[in-house]
Parts: sequence; C-alpha cells; structure tokens
Amino acid sequence: MRINEHYAKLPASYLFPEIGRRVRAYQAAHPDAKVIRLGIGDVTEPLAPAIVEAMHAAVSEMGERATFKGYGPEQGYDFLIDAIREHDYQARGVDIAGDEIFVSDGSKCDSGNIQEIFAVAARVAVTDPVYPVYVDSNVMAGRTPMLIEGNEANGFQPEPPKEPVDVVYLCSPNNPTGTVATRTQLEKWVAWAKANDTVILFDAAYEGYISDPSLPHSIYEIPGAKDCAIELRSFSKRAGFTGVRCAFMVVPKTVTGLDPSGKRVSLNSLWARRHTTKFNGASYVVQRGAAAAYSPAGLQQTNAQIAFYMENARLIREGLTAAGFTIFGGVHAPYVWLRTAGGATSWDFFDQLLDKAQVVGTPGAGFGPAGEGYFRLSAFNSRANIEEALGRIRRVFG
Amino acid sequence: MRINEHYAKLPASYLFPEIGRRVRAYQAAHPDAKVIRLGIGDVTEPLAPAIVEAMHAAVSEMGERATFKGYGPEQGYDFLIDAIREHDYQARGVDIAGDEIFVSDGSKCDSGNIQEIFAVAARVAVTDPVYPVYVDSNVMAGRTPMLIEGNEANGFQPEPPKEPVDVVYLCSPNNPTGTVATRTQLEKWVAWAKANDTVILFDAAYEGYISDPSLPHSIYEIPGAKDCAIELRSFSKRAGFTGVRCAFMVVPKTVTGLDPSGKRVSLNSLWARRHTTKFNGASYVVQRGAAAAYSPAGLQQTNAQIAFYMENARLIREGLTAAGFTIFGGVHAPYVWLRTAGGATSWDFFDQLLDKAQVVGTPGAGFGPAGEGYFRLSAFNSRANIEEALGRIRRVFG
Repeated sequence: MRINEHYAKLPASYLFPEIGRRVRAYQAAHPDAKVIRLGIGDVTEPLAPAIVEAMHAAVSEMGERATFKGYGPEQGYDFLIDAIREHDYQARGVDIAGDEIFVSDGSKCDSGNIQEIFAVAARVAVTDPVYPVYVDSNVMAGRTPMLIEGNEANGFQPEPPKEPVDVVYLCSPNNPTGTVATRTQLEKWVAWAKANDTVILFDAAYEGYISDPSLPHSIYEIPGAKDCAIELRSFSKRAGFTGVRCAFMVVPKTVTGLDPSGKRVSLNSLWARRHTTKFNGASYVVQRGAAAAYSPAGLQQTNAQIAFYMENARLIREGLTAAGFTIFGGVHAPYVWLRTAGGATSWDFFDQLLDKAQVVGTPGAGFGPAGEGYFRLSAFNSRANIEEALGRIRRVFG
Repeated sequence: MRINEHYAKLPASYLFPEIGRRVRAYQAAHPDAKVIRLGIGDVTEPLAPAIVEAMHAAVSEMGERATFKGYGPEQGYDFLIDAIREHDYQARGVDIAGDEIFVSDGSKCDSGNIQEIFAVAARVAVTDPVYPVYVDSNVMAGRTPMLIEGNEANGFQPEPPKEPVDVVYLCSPNNPTGTVATRTQLEKWVAWAKANDTVILFDAAYEGYISDPSLPHSIYEIPGAKDCAIELRSFSKRAGFTGVRCAFMVVPKTVTGLDPSGKRVSLNSLWARRHTTKFNGASYVVQRGAAAAYSPAGLQQTNAQIAFYMENARLIREGLTAAGFTIFGGVHAPYVWLRTAGGATSWDFFDQLLDKAQVVGTPGAGFGPAGEGYFRLSAFNSRANIEEALGRIRRVFG
C-alpha cells in the first residue's frame, strides 16, 4: 500500500496540538500553577440566549415525527442561506445568489478542502505569517506555496507579489497579526488578481470584529471581486460557534479557472460537485442556531460578546505597551501581535511566558517564517483572566 | 488559474441530486401525485427520546459560562470514544485503543477523505455496484478505481481479485445490494489483503441492521484485520443521525503503508495529521447525542427503530416476490435489491416506477456498471407508505 508521500514534508505536528502538548507537560510538572490560556483563538463566552433557544427548538423538532429532518440540502438550508445573503451581503450592497453560498461545518474544513478543485500544478501563494491550514493542506496535495512576507515595514499587510500565481490566500482581519486590509489595499489585490488570472481565497472569519465603518467586511465590496474571489466566513468567532461548528463559503459563478484545453470552467460548478460528493450538510440543529445569530436578539447578543472581547483586546494592547512591547493589530481583530522581548525566538518566548508568567500564547513561527520573533495573544478570555495575565506579564517583562 | 482536470472525468451529477431533479420535475408536472420516496436511504423515524434529552442538556450546557465548550479534541470527546470502544468493540471481543478512533461529522466525509493519505499512484479497487463516493472521490484525485463485479452468481459478494491492489473498499451490509458478507468471506478478504499488502476500507455503516448473531459486525472480528483494515461506522442509520451528522473511523496503529523509500508508515499517524489539520471536531451537542445512543435507554429505543425498519424490509421482500420480482438483500440491511421488470435499464425502470406507481427508488446503474438492470428500494419510511407503495407496485407489475 503506497502512501501519500507529501505528508513527510509537513512539520511533525500541527501547531495547536504542539502547544497543547507543551502546556500539558508544564501543568503536569507544576500542578498548582494557574495557567491562563491566550493561545488558541477559542471563544469563552457561552452561546447567546437567542441561539440556545433556537437550538433547543430544533432539537425538539428532531424528536417529533412530523418535524424530524433527515438529510438536508448539502449546500445548507434556505433559511440560513437567505439570512446570510440578507445580513452579510445585501446589507453591505453586495448581491450574492443562494446557490453561490455553501454552508459547511467549519472554515478549517473549507480552507483545507478548497484546494482540491485546483490543479496539482497550480502555483499557490500565501501571505506570511498566516493560518497554517492554508500551507499544510497544499503541501499535503503536493504543492509548495510561495510565501509573501509580511513585516513591520508593510504593517503585516504585504502587497501583491511580482510573480503571477494561480491562487493566493488572504486573511483579513488577519490571523495571526490582528491587522486589517484597507479598501485601498484590497483594491490593489483585486486589480492584480484580475490582471493575472489569479483566484483570491479571502478568509474573512474575523470580519465581525471590524469596528471602523470605512473598512470592507467582504472582498465583494471591491468592484470586480466577484470575478476573481472566493470568500470564507465562519460563525466560530462571530457567534461563539467553535464547539458548535458552522461556516460557509461564497463561490460566485463568475469566478473561473482554466482546464488543460484552455476552456474556462466555473469554480462554482466544481465546488458544488465536490461539496455534494464529499459532504452531507451541516447538522440541522447547528444551522438553526446559526440562523438565530442573525435575528434581532441574536445580533444584539453576539455584538455584545464581540464588544466584550474587543475591550479585552484594548486592555491587552495597553498592558503590553506599558510593559514595553512593540505591538500590532488588536483594533479590528481579537488578536494582538507582539515583537518578542529581547529578540527571543518565538518558541523560546512561548516557554518563557509559560514558565515565568503561566500565560499561554502562540509562537509567531508557527504561522510561517516571517512570524519568527513575534507572538500572538488572543483576547478570548474572561476579563479577570485578561487582567491577571497582563499583571503577570508586566511584573515579569515590564 | 488552473483547475483540477480530473473533475471532467466525473459524471455530470452525483447520483442523488439527479434523482432529486427527476422527482421534482415529475412533481411539478403532476402536482396532485402522492409520491412515495424509497430512493435515498434516509431515515424517517424521529430521534430517540434518550438522544433528544442528551442534546437538550448539551445545548443548555453551551448556554452557561461554566459548562460552555469551545473547540473540542479534533478526534472526538473521550465520553463518546469510550462508549464506542466499549459497545461497538469490547462487547464483540475486539480491543481498539482510544487514539485509533476518529469521530467525524459523517461517513460520507470519511469515505471521501480517506483516499487523501494514499499515493496518487495507488491502485484502488471497489466492489461493483457500490456507494458512489468511493469511486468519485478517487476519480477527483486522479485515480481510476478497478471494479470487482458483483452479480447474481456470487450473490453480490464478489471474491478478492487476482490482481494485487493497494486499497480495496468493501461495504457490508452492502449498499446498495443489501447483501452481507459472511465470516468466511471476510476471512478470505483479510487473508488476501495480508498476502498482497492491501489495505481494506471496511464500511460498516449498516452493521446495526445485522440480526444473525453469527455474522461479524466489525472487520476486526476477523483475526489479522487489525494489520490491514480501516473501518468506517456511522450513527446515521444506527441512530437516525442523517440530519444530525456523526460518524467515526477506526484506523489501527498496526495498519501501515509504504513511503517511496520503502519505509513502513503507520496510517494512524497519517490520518491523525489529516484529521487535526483539516477538521475541527464534530459539534459538541451532536457528540452528546451520539453517546446517548449507547445508553441503556438509547440502545433500547434505537434497536426498536431498527426493528421497525427491518419489518418494512420484510414486507418489501414479500411484496416484491409476490409481484414476481427476483430480489436480493433486505435481511441484514435496510435495502432490497431487485432485478428490473422485463430487463429494463435501471433508469428506465426508475422512470416507469415513478410514472406508473409514483414510487421513487434508486437505479442500480447509479452504483456502477454491474448495477445496470437492478434497482434499490429502501425500507426507510412509515409502515403506511411502505404498504401503499407495495400495493401500487403489485397493481402495476404483479
């Protein structure tokens, strides 16, 4: 039995399991230490009451013959697709058709799976540092992504590369740097993509954290993007769904690729074939919960959660600045990106912070080579834990 | 942007969407027709009360800060993995370690995704007719599966092929033929796989429908299978989870493949890397529901549902036999496989049955060339609908 040889090119472990391993080892050696986790970007507030209510109602429906739901449409139920179209797109002046939206069980799956519709020979580029799934899923398929370096000079929002590529992954608000692309920056990417026949995979999992009304939430707010961009969205951070599992992807029918004969093929039809062949729809109960996030009560409650996390982010920015750190992001994203103390490598800083302050963060190097020397702290935690963590950091490093 | 050229080798549409399209067209032309659907193998009984209760409790937990769950372990929660180990394996004398079980959101995903860890050059074989996802997911990746013909002579349980292959997909109880592999037949497959360094993907999604205690429910009941087999299980048909979404895959650490240098690599480690990189765990609420299917009440209630469906299957077998059809399966599986009337092609028979009896089934040709001339009827429906459908079939064909 011959295995996929490309897996040997991957680092031994995906970033977050490795962090988990180190934290468990530390806890085992220091059973009394109160470790505060600002590492994995995982929400901590409970589900909003409107969502809980909708999920209870859906569970009850599943228990009655007259309202039981078996297989649903693989693309998602209309009640959810219609809510997405209205609130995420029409409200921002963007018209997306129902059959351009594909509901899934998470953006990690979507961002890992979308590369299947590209040729193995497709040249892929990612900004660096970035969410590791983009790179790992391409390496597994035999591609070696080109890295576009983000750095302090470009504010971790690099410009399009000189070389043409088939596909580029963009993430804004950015994970891990917490920086956000402006309208002008996105316009440059779209113009470049159209000029080079490149497809942009725009990961907007954190768009709910944008507060400046002049910043685009969707790539489709940029004219021309519907010809060249696929957009990923998630309920994980928008509505606290990390343990509930729901996301969606927008694949406009006007985005095309070339087959070997040079014929243009709609990526929407390719993705529809992939999605209906290898996926059986997100859980009905989960989709009802996601739809409730768009109700007036659901929006008000989830917006309050986001405001709570963003107040945490503000405290982190101020606390780190007061402790002498150089920081980035954290204004339109729940992540603060910091230059490590004394030029430490990012894994050394991880171990220092865990050992001296019992605070867990995420080493920048885990997001790519340009992340070396940087570190990510997440704003997802209780106010008390955020304040306690910052107090410890100021005592150790301030 | 260069696309994956292998998609062009697929039929235009996955089988079940095509059935849906034809039924919608018929309904639009005959708005008063009462169409009875015995096509897609989709459960119709509501979720068992024990499962509903567990899911309500889990939704409530998600609404309280103290019990809220964010990201869970990608492989699944221990409470579910432990229940699987105990009830599905230890109870049948099989010892499976916790980290050999990977909980997912469905067997369609698992059976579509597992091929990613095989080399593109791996030779893949499937029995024919069979669940289309095995073939389609391999074609998408650039492989052309070899078909092993099932037919009336071998009772739709073909023997291992002469040619060695890297991977073979087996499904027992079989979808679509409803036939089941005996212990002796499985022993032959395991001996052949071990002799040829072949990996068996054993899809046991319908094992809950086996009633003869001498028949294996798991491939691991066959000595040696833990060295050569991966097993797929699902809650979809076992516990009515088609709209809830939960399944799991067992990848023993002792199953290995060869890398290009000839080194043996554990498929468990490859799949763990794939699963943690591209999947974020099944919904917590769903996993609580799945675990409740193993509680004493859950087992009793879901077993009663299976008994109900299998009584439907018995009625279908008797009704079709009385109408003059030659039938197979339907004893240890919720599917009855029949030879079409008068040698019709299976899609012609689909149209006939829909037009004359307003009954929807699944054309055998949709499951592979050896399915041509055959047809699948599913036992998932109310007793009244099953009886009504059989009455119509007897009037039209009897």
